[in-house]
Amino acid sequence: MTYQDKLKAIRARMIEKNIAAYIIPSSDPHMSEYVPDRFKCIHFASGFTGSAGTLVITADFAGLWADFRYFEQANEQLKDSGYELVKLQVQHTPEYISWLYGKLPDGAQVGFDYQLMSMALGEEIKASLAPKRMDIKNLDLLDDIWEDRPELPADQAFLLPEADCGQRFESKLSDLRAEISKTRADVHIVSSLDDLAWLFNIRGKDVSYNPVVLCYALISLSVVTLYIDENKLNAEDLVLMGERGIKIKPYNDIKSDIVQLGQASVLFDEKRSCYEFITLLPSTVNVIRQTTPLVFLKSIKNSKEIENTHYSMIQDGVALTRFFKWLEENIGKTKITEISASQKIKAYREGAEKFAGLSFASIAGYGPHAALPHYTPNVDSDLELQPEGLFLLDSGGHYFYGTTDVTRTVPLGPTTEEEKKDYTLVLSAMIFGSAAKFPKGTRGYQIDGIVRQQLWQQGINYGHGTGHGVGYYLNVHEGPQNIGPSNAAVAVDKGMITSIEPGIYRPGKHGVRTENLVLTVASSTTEFGEFLGFETLTLAYIDTSIVLSNLLLPAQIDWLNSYNQMVYEKLKPFLNEAESAWLSEKCKAI
Amino acid sequence: MTYQDKLKAIRARMIEKNIAAYIIPSSDPHMSEYVPDRFKCIHFASGFTGSAGTLVITADFAGLWADFRYFEQANEQLKDSGYELVKLQVQHTPEYISWLYGKLPDGAQVGFDYQLMSMALGEEIKASLAPKRMDIKNLDLLDDIWEDRPELPADQAFLLPEADCGQRFESKLSDLRAEISKTRADVHIVSSLDDLAWLFNIRGKDVSYNPVVLCYALISLSVVTLYIDENKLNAEDLVLMGERGIKIKPYNDIKSDIVQLGQASVLFDEKRSCYEFITLLPSTVNVIRQTTPLVFLKSIKNSKEIENTHYSMIQDGVALTRFFKWLEENIGKTKITEISASQKIKAYREGAEKFAGLSFASIAGYGPHAALPHYTPNVDSDLELQPEGLFLLDSGGHYFYGTTDVTRTVPLGPTTEEEKKDYTLVLSAMIFGSAAKFPKGTRGYQIDGIVRQQLWQQGINYGHGTGHGVGYYLNVHEGPQNIGPSNAAVAVDKGMITSIEPGIYRPGKHGVRTENLVLTVASSTTEFGEFLGFETLTLAYIDTSIVLSNLLLPAQIDWLNSYNQMVYEKLKPFLNEAESAWLSEKCKAI
Repeated sequence: MTYQDKLKAIRARMIEKNIAAYIIPSSDPHMSEYVPDRFKCIHFASGFTGSAGTLVITADFAGLWADFRYFEQANEQLKDSGYELVKLQVQHTPEYISWLYGKLPDGAQVGFDYQLMSMALGEEIKASLAPKRMDIKNLDLLDDIWEDRPELPADQAFLLPEADCGQRFESKLSDLRAEISKTRADVHIVSSLDDLAWLFNIRGKDVSYNPVVLCYALISLSVVTLYIDENKLNAEDLVLMGERGIKIKPYNDIKSDIVQLGQASVLFDEKRSCYEFITLLPSTVNVIRQTTPLVFLKSIKNSKEIENTHYSMIQDGVALTRFFKWLEENIGKTKITEISASQKIKAYREGAEKFAGLSFASIAGYGPHAALPHYTPNVDSDLELQPEGLFLLDSGGHYFYGTTDVTRTVPLGPTTEEEKKDYTLVLSAMIFGSAAKFPKGTRGYQIDGIVRQQLWQQGINYGHGTGHGVGYYLNVHEGPQNIGPSNAAVAVDKGMITSIEPGIYRPGKHGVRTENLVLTVASSTTEFGEFLGFETLTLAYIDTSIVLSNLLLPAQIDWLNSYNQMVYEKLKPFLNEAESAWLSEKCKAI
Repeated sequence: MTYQDKLKAIRARMIEKNIAAYIIPSSDPHMSEYVPDRFKCIHFASGFTGSAGTLVITADFAGLWADFRYFEQANEQLKDSGYELVKLQVQHTPEYISWLYGKLPDGAQVGFDYQLMSMALGEEIKASLAPKRMDIKNLDLLDDIWEDRPELPADQAFLLPEADCGQRFESKLSDLRAEISKTRADVHIVSSLDDLAWLFNIRGKDVSYNPVVLCYALISLSVVTLYIDENKLNAEDLVLMGERGIKIKPYNDIKSDIVQLGQASVLFDEKRSCYEFITLLPSTVNVIRQTTPLVFLKSIKNSKEIENTHYSMIQDGVALTRFFKWLEENIGKTKITEISASQKIKAYREGAEKFAGLSFASIAGYGPHAALPHYTPNVDSDLELQPEGLFLLDSGGHYFYGTTDVTRTVPLGPTTEEEKKDYTLVLSAMIFGSAAKFPKGTRGYQIDGIVRQQLWQQGINYGHGTGHGVGYYLNVHEGPQNIGPSNAAVAVDKGMITSIEPGIYRPGKHGVRTENLVLTVASSTTEFGEFLGFETLTLAYIDTSIVLSNLLLPAQIDWLNSYNQMVYEKLKPFLNEAESAWLSEKCKAI
């Protein structure tokens, strides 16, 4: 079936069901970033493979609403699909709602699969359409045209040894219950997979890159029920869970249990739960909407998680050292492409103890490809690396003891003055962030201003955030904190792990990004209060050969030299003599 | 009547009206910062003179909820009043609501004067109390115990020559109507006095410091009605208003006109309109809640306003030069106190052409008093200035051609190393802000981070915002932009006038603040977009004698020297020879 045929089939069913518009979101029932194949609905319907976007279909228009990251890719992939790209003005905004409101007649029906839409968004759609007496309808129009639609994944999941987690399930549960009580709820229903993985000390491989397992949980002040395919768990883990007082029920039973909730006050995270749940609730239920306390609990890493993450950084740093040594020694001699380079860094990571997979698809961009911040090479785009210009590698791994995410941009040979200047300015921005001190309570948006200031002075900016939270052997993107220009009122608190990754992208020419993960730590307590700062976790040398030192402050040069010195000292015990000698050169003070 | 007697009388009336709690807010019906005497209810009831706070009275408790700025003052003024100070955890938060919710029994009635509570807050109170079936009641319990309660002010108002405003009323009206249409409203009811003053090019003196006049307006797409005491306007202005198509009605008629609105879609600014209006609306009205477009229109100064403001800065700078010269020449010789110094700077400002009053009560703090950021001297606190340490003067004026707000901290003789260091760090922070460049769309919270970064590095912070918008011959505090840590999603846009005023306060020792007003201007347009920056408007030399140059970056020293040079050059033509010579010394490069 071509995409156009599928579109025809969807439209035929829309007429049948008396639907004026049909919406296909990019989510799964857990509002995940990476979804199981079964929920790759946009890919199935239109061929578009980007991870964010929304298809909206009416009788005479079919469009993909997507943000600037995907403009090029969507134009390419949507050719002859019957779908047009609609460029989002503002990222993460459901701009199709007002389009629908303007376009559809009074009283029209809009359909979508309620389990693939977040509670917040489903309610926003319903409320926005109401003034024209339009309504919404729960429909999965894809299922019966999707032959061989993949089943839900059946991969094994497993409990982590609790000693490695730093906090036992029972203790996490009791922290969570204390937080639930504060909201005056007596039941909390959790859908977000990384929050559940953290709470239950469980990991799985149901989706790409995120080590999570499909499940839901219902937590009351007396009962904990985990809704999960029991076949995913081995007998030993099932016994352990029983001992911990966890009741296991089939994955889909969450729905019938919601229907039977009775008089409860139920806490939902409306951005991390599906809209369908709201429609299942009996009217006797009082709904409390709030970010799940798990997001905050999970974000503050405990001392064991921090200790283990330090170890994962050493493993990762060794892999990166070997990779960059190999690259330098082979560039211009062996054929190296973006894809083969990605495979090489993956191979080095696989050599590490208890490596558990990549934490995201490596971004390996040479020359102009590095100017696309979210570029992933494919066979058609794969460039051969030449002994000149800049190569950008943004990659990371999961280990049983932590998750990494690191970007380095390195010269492969001669570079232009502009490349050197951009490289130095990005480094300066990263150091401004890494060396920042700030009062407890400071939000990421203030740190973002500090990171960008020097670029702004030069009329330069980058279109992505400066940093995101990172999980502990969990999702490489996790909330609640971020460092960016948006007005997220979340403090960058002690114990959080966050990336700092400024960049400069010159389309058609080159791109630079330098990224470290940092841990928020105590800095000082003065008469003005408690101040925090960052400890850099990532251990990968920063190339100094193309630094224009006059663009750095003396304190920034000191920072750079002591960072490289620390990298060398921490990695040395894990390197052979040749590697150690090579790294020592790279880490020499400037 | 003592405050305790008044409290008894209020409680007697609460029993009569079956009210479990009575709330007295600090506002007037226009949600003003400065209110007419008639609405100084908190002062009448409790003796507290601070401009922000809320009295809450129950049968067995009476409290003033106030923020940290007023802790000391409230403790002093509430002695024997029957009221206790309740310290706010978070500024500008109605924390008394959850207190009432916890304390009062199910079904209790809470009373307040609906016209003194903002629409947003009134609705928040009502919604928050609802789960316990509590309700609210519109009551003014003060009126019949307030003998000689002041009438509404009857001062004259006047239209500004439109040539001085840079935009005629008709043109402002048409801009406003375009914005109203975008909200899909057909009527806009405006209560905020500075917005109305800007729109109608009218000024008055109904409250202290803000040159506004009590009025409301109803603006539809065809009619403009101004609700105002006609006696305030002279015959000529009334004719002009008639010519401009403005219908004049008595001030209080707004209420009966709201009752008769019929089928309209009405735009209200729920933070700048009183709750009473919502209760008057017929059920046929569709309410649209949004910040009034006037806030945004007013904040972007037109070229005439900017030109005139430049001239007001010269007048203000001349007054400040004369004052600081006088101060330096007389300190240790003549008796000078905080109050007499305030009177002196006022006198110098009164010498300026078309001076129109102070823009706020001068903050003149010597020594430890300067450590109280919102200190205003009174006869009991008035300190004599000595020829040593630091003197902080935060003052400003209205001129018919602009409004000023400036803070300088100067040494009166020998100063400590800590004073010098704090002075230099504050200066550094102000220069970080003044020299910042940023992409169009940048919000004040990012600039705030840039301003504070160096203080944070030293474990220092200040508890107030970094900057606020400033009006054109209008309120010295105006929105929508501000520079501060809160998550206000408003860009600091081209044409806005904003203060930059970092400080360091060491209780019991000294305080430093340095404040300039800046205009947001275009900086550059690059492949990365449009960048903005600041042009400093304030023209008052910055003392360099106690600068520790090693704490400033070379670029900051350059900024300081060229700023002082500009001050000298711009003020010189308006100074006599002795003044000019003196200022030249002060402005010498370091």
